[in-house]
Amino acid sequence: MSRDPFSFNNPYLITRSLYPENQETPIHFIPSNHTPDHLFFRRNHFPYPTLNQSRFWIPIGGSVLNPTIFSNYDLLKLPSKTVNTVLECAGNKRNFFEPNVFGEQWEKGATSMGKWKGVSLGTLFEITGLEKDAKEVIVEGYDYGNRTDLDQIYTYTRSLPLEKALHPDTIIAYEYNDKPIPFKHGFPFRLVVPNWYAMASVKWIKQINIINTTFEGPFQTVDYVYYPKKENDEGSFLVTINNVNSTIQQPLHMEKLETGRHMIKGIAWTGKGEITTVEISTDGGETWSNAAIAHTDGVHDYTWSTWSFDWMVSEKGEFTILSRARDSYDRVQPPNPFWNQKGYGYNAIDQIKVKVE
Amino acid sequence: MSRDPFSFNNPYLITRSLYPENQETPIHFIPSNHTPDHLFFRRNHFPYPTLNQSRFWIPIGGSVLNPTIFSNYDLLKLPSKTVNTVLECAGNKRNFFEPNVFGEQWEKGATSMGKWKGVSLGTLFEITGLEKDAKEVIVEGYDYGNRTDLDQIYTYTRSLPLEKALHPDTIIAYEYNDKPIPFKHGFPFRLVVPNWYAMASVKWIKQINIINTTFEGPFQTVDYVYYPKKENDEGSFLVTINNVNSTIQQPLHMEKLETGRHMIKGIAWTGKGEITTVEISTDGGETWSNAAIAHTDGVHDYTWSTWSFDWMVSEKGEFTILSRARDSYDRVQPPNPFWNQKGYGYNAIDQIKVKVE
Repeated sequence: MSRDPFSFNNPYLITRSLYPENQETPIHFIPSNHTPDHLFFRRNHFPYPTLNQSRFWIPIGGSVLNPTIFSNYDLLKLPSKTVNTVLECAGNKRNFFEPNVFGEQWEKGATSMGKWKGVSLGTLFEITGLEKDAKEVIVEGYDYGNRTDLDQIYTYTRSLPLEKALHPDTIIAYEYNDKPIPFKHGFPFRLVVPNWYAMASVKWIKQINIINTTFEGPFQTVDYVYYPKKENDEGSFLVTINNVNSTIQQPLHMEKLETGRHMIKGIAWTGKGEITTVEISTDGGETWSNAAIAHTDGVHDYTWSTWSFDWMVSEKGEFTILSRARDSYDRVQPPNPFWNQKGYGYNAIDQIKVKVE
Repeated sequence: MSRDPFSFNNPYLITRSLYPENQETPIHFIPSNHTPDHLFFRRNHFPYPTLNQSRFWIPIGGSVLNPTIFSNYDLLKLPSKTVNTVLECAGNKRNFFEPNVFGEQWEKGATSMGKWKGVSLGTLFEITGLEKDAKEVIVEGYDYGNRTDLDQIYTYTRSLPLEKALHPDTIIAYEYNDKPIPFKHGFPFRLVVPNWYAMASVKWIKQINIINTTFEGPFQTVDYVYYPKKENDEGSFLVTINNVNSTIQQPLHMEKLETGRHMIKGIAWTGKGEITTVEISTDGGETWSNAAIAHTDGVHDYTWSTWSFDWMVSEKGEFTILSRARDSYDRVQPPNPFWNQKGYGYNAIDQIKVKVE
């Protein structure tokens, strides 16, 4: 590699749409540790909201004993909680469904991993108290706009069942990777819900309401629902925790290689337990070997695991390389994706082809 | 659209590989006039070369009467020539071939359009003179390295037949869009060959040699050759002029739209003559209508044409939208691409799907 400064090459986000902004991470070209701001995928349903305040507030109301408005100063004074977590868009890898699914054509980069610091939602509820019949926590973002399928204006609003909301690692974050959250990722406050697809991690929090019923907003009951049948909505169920998954970062799909030794490497993650094995096949699935797994942070947390496999190839030809992750709940990537109308939760065995010449 | 400065969204290049650097233009998201530097696709066979000089030279030798070394000052003193031209990578749209072809998986953005200023090669040959048996002009770049398929080090070197080299619009360029050529696009001197795929437009020119034989370098006789058969090299021929082609910039593939009026728009270009019609189908090819064509510069030159079509859609459902360009030589985009081993010259009718809901 030349040391000429001119030769420095940058990867950029991959633009899927600009209004609203949807750009994905070039996952093949970035280090496997915490995703830096400028390579963090951007996923928006609406235009960016306008925030005019110099001081920020989160009102918590509804089925609570003491409705309270928390300021940013209040939050900073409360005990903090840090979580290292993957945030993966439910539509990550949608582009690979057959038949094709409408919507953002995410390839493999609608996912991130980073360090979020904030206050556990449960800590706030200790202050507000909860009524006995409290059932769900509704979190509303400042972003709003039109949907193509409905005639009203909606804000981006989601609910969490009380049990998940009370998990100590479900936080109202105010820092990402040791700095205030970047505006495009939810400044000043973002809900961060580890183990769940990132639709749950509402950005630009405007207010929180506790209800004793079931929330019915369109981002809960129309989108982010698995509809397994093409023709009708039978058998539908909510998108919640991340499926077990892996992505090959190197080599590239359709890359030409020389004979010799090549490092196959990538990441693996799950929404349940931890990654126990990543198996690699270099012959299209006939035989499998274990990759070496390294957890990036030493501790488990909710990070992705990096893995690598040393491949010695002496014969020329075309090769199909597969990666298959398994988690501690014995969930394993399936050979075929679970097709659903809106294209969520793709986690089939990852696959690339290379040519050795 | 909010006027909040935070809401400003940038498109970026799409990274295909970093070493060597291959990044494509997000063609759907950029204005249709001259491609700015930072969105100009980057296509490299090798690492960027190291240029240590503060003064640059182009030696012209071989079958010439007066071998001459031209400095950058010499070139600036000679009569200049400006060409506005498309430069499209021969592998543009390779990703869409079926069966898949190995190599960079370019989608639709390995193409650019801009204003190049320099000196006609013919003007330099008036000074050097040419021997009577001169047949080809070899142009060598400063970039060099290994190839996966051969064991030697090669520079990036190509030849042009004398007739094409002597065309007044074949220039040694020293400016792009009114500024010195950006380093990554060939500073200080780039050969610019309008109407030919961009492999002919050698970057970082090191030297020029005239020969009376046929050049046999690997970027002339191994790469940039159409091999129409999968099994053998029968019927092969050189990649030269651009095929007639078009790309739909808007709407996006797999986009969801509301019923109503939508602008379908894009670009069309050819390596022979000019674009005469662009036809649009919104029913998968059953019926076709002419799009309105606007040449971006008022004059023809070698620019792409922009086109648009007003689409009123009142029924919901899935639609396949096609664009088909025709040029003044009556060349027209075919329904199916001309498959070839290395995936060059893809120019099938452009196609996207949208869902109206």
